[in-house]
Amino acid sequence: MPIAYPTDPDCIFCKIVAGDIPCHKLYEDDLVLAMLDIGPIAPGHTLLIPKGHYPSLTDVPPDTAAALGRALPLLGQAVCKATDTDNFNVLQNNGRPAGQAVFHVHFHVIPRTADDARTTPPAGSPGTGLPFDWPATELDPDAATTLAERIRSAL
Amino acid sequence: MPIAYPTDPDCIFCKIVAGDIPCHKLYEDDLVLAMLDIGPIAPGHTLLIPKGHYPSLTDVPPDTAAALGRALPLLGQAVCKATDTDNFNVLQNNGRPAGQAVFHVHFHVIPRTADDARTTPPAGSPGTGLPFDWPATELDPDAATTLAERIRSAL
Repeated sequence: MPIAYPTDPDCIFCKIVAGDIPCHKLYEDDLVLAMLDIGPIAPGHTLLIPKGHYPSLTDVPPDTAAALGRALPLLGQAVCKATDTDNFNVLQNNGRPAGQAVFHVHFHVIPRTADDARTTPPAGSPGTGLPFDWPATELDPDAATTLAERIRSAL
Repeated sequence: MPIAYPTDPDCIFCKIVAGDIPCHKLYEDDLVLAMLDIGPIAPGHTLLIPKGHYPSLTDVPPDTAAALGRALPLLGQAVCKATDTDNFNVLQNNGRPAGQAVFHVHFHVIPRTADDARTTPPAGSPGTGLPFDWPATELDPDAATTLAERIRSAL
């Protein structure tokens, strides 16, 4: 018996899962599907999605979350082998301020080469992986104790 | 009986798992541990790691990968609740060109607010989440067919 999961008839990823829109499918099991991203930021840029329609990762039930987790190393290995690198990013965005554009959970698997810009390339540069900055601060010990307690009590 | 996993005596995350270095621990089970990042790029910036020492995500065995996947929605929900947002990024880097600095797999869970810079802030700006660019290209249909076949055969 097929597994039932929520769908949204207006969602492009749900249409792909249903087979109503084609994709370059790489992998699927009962709970997840992987395909090439049609707007790659690097050759081999792959998307891993749950078959069910969950807008945020926080909506994903445990079995599906586990299936996403299990698929990531397999995909990372295969995408790297096919694009001749050992390096890749996994990125998953939740909410517009985080950069989410399609509101059906998706993990980006993005191969990186040594030639990639680690940080932002000049304007007009071609796609070069995932350029990001890292505005690190220093953790304040007192604030951290309070914050950690708040997070633990929200788990 | 405790689960056996590989360790590296020189790895800071292995020392944290062993209890030899303190951390602001948020969550742990048999296979994974979560803590506050000591160099946060946003308040609430959290790390989720496998207890075993695996340098790349491609080294992580299926049960541990599933445990990482299961923990991500729980942590995302709790970190967002504690930092009063609905938005967050999950980022996991493999290899120096991808931005990896500690060679023990770790997932960053980074809360985002509407005030965050989606892209790179001016030099000297304070930490504002995860500023990244998105140098999207267009997927060439013929190249994609070949590439997808290479990835599928590497799975």
